[in-house]
Amino acid sequence: MGGNSPCASCKLLRRRCAKDCIFAPFFPSDDPQKFAIVHKVFGASNVSKMLQEVPFHQRSDAVSSLVYEANARMRDPVYGCVGAITFLQNQVSQLQMQLAIAQAEILCIQMQQDQHTANDPDQLGFEEEEEKCFLLHDNGFSVAQVQETLKRESLWT
Amino acid sequence: MGGNSPCASCKLLRRRCAKDCIFAPFFPSDDPQKFAIVHKVFGASNVSKMLQEVPFHQRSDAVSSLVYEANARMRDPVYGCVGAITFLQNQVSQLQMQLAIAQAEILCIQMQQDQHTANDPDQLGFEEEEEKCFLLHDNGFSVAQVQETLKRESLWT
Repeated sequence: MGGNSPCASCKLLRRRCAKDCIFAPFFPSDDPQKFAIVHKVFGASNVSKMLQEVPFHQRSDAVSSLVYEANARMRDPVYGCVGAITFLQNQVSQLQMQLAIAQAEILCIQMQQDQHTANDPDQLGFEEEEEKCFLLHDNGFSVAQVQETLKRESLWT
Repeated sequence: MGGNSPCASCKLLRRRCAKDCIFAPFFPSDDPQKFAIVHKVFGASNVSKMLQEVPFHQRSDAVSSLVYEANARMRDPVYGCVGAITFLQNQVSQLQMQLAIAQAEILCIQMQQDQHTANDPDQLGFEEEEEKCFLLHDNGFSVAQVQETLKRESLWT
């Protein structure tokens, strides 16, 4: 890198690759596409400025994240990375809901179990407990409450 | 927009705001920061090219996602949006794991319940069933298997 062997960035920008070229450690000449894509999305000048603002030991991670973002923008010109974030946020919400329902189900089954162990004819029967459990996790109001809690807890809404 | 009242982009770039200015519908003059941030991260020329590649009815969404991405990059110059994606991926993996364990627990409790309902002295007792359930979701091998399945299913690894 530097001197007579220009990095991928200097090659694309048709300029001399200086010894202290900010791109050279991260954009080797044998992978021209890596620089081409960040150049197309962010522009060489902005990438250079962004790398300058980051300590050297973090620049490799910064380049990787810029390449990832640029690839996402090329694949999805409307939403880019934000499409992935929206998809994952929805997945988190659905999983939190499924987990809350599963945990409520555990509680219900355990209540039924305790009921049977106690074997008390005055208390609710098996079918009545099952009915209560059904109401707990299929009742519109309860599910709406869980959804509302999840919305409030979300980092991204 | 256009003519004598320049949009935020043309104001910042100190140029005449043409009637067909590509930025004008999305960067009003009363919100200069919105354009300043995408200009700093992507560059006005790249934003213009990206908008031209998107149908008009999707440009508003494209601008919103670019503003979101640019803000994320300003907050986190090393990881930007990718930091949020990594955080959400980890959250999804943890929730999938917790859900798998909760579902295994439901299965175990139901097995115990069936056992008690059958009331058969030749079959496993309550403590033995509990021990089996404990092994199912606390055994290193089973948890490792669940983790491996989740890794294979992940969209982002």
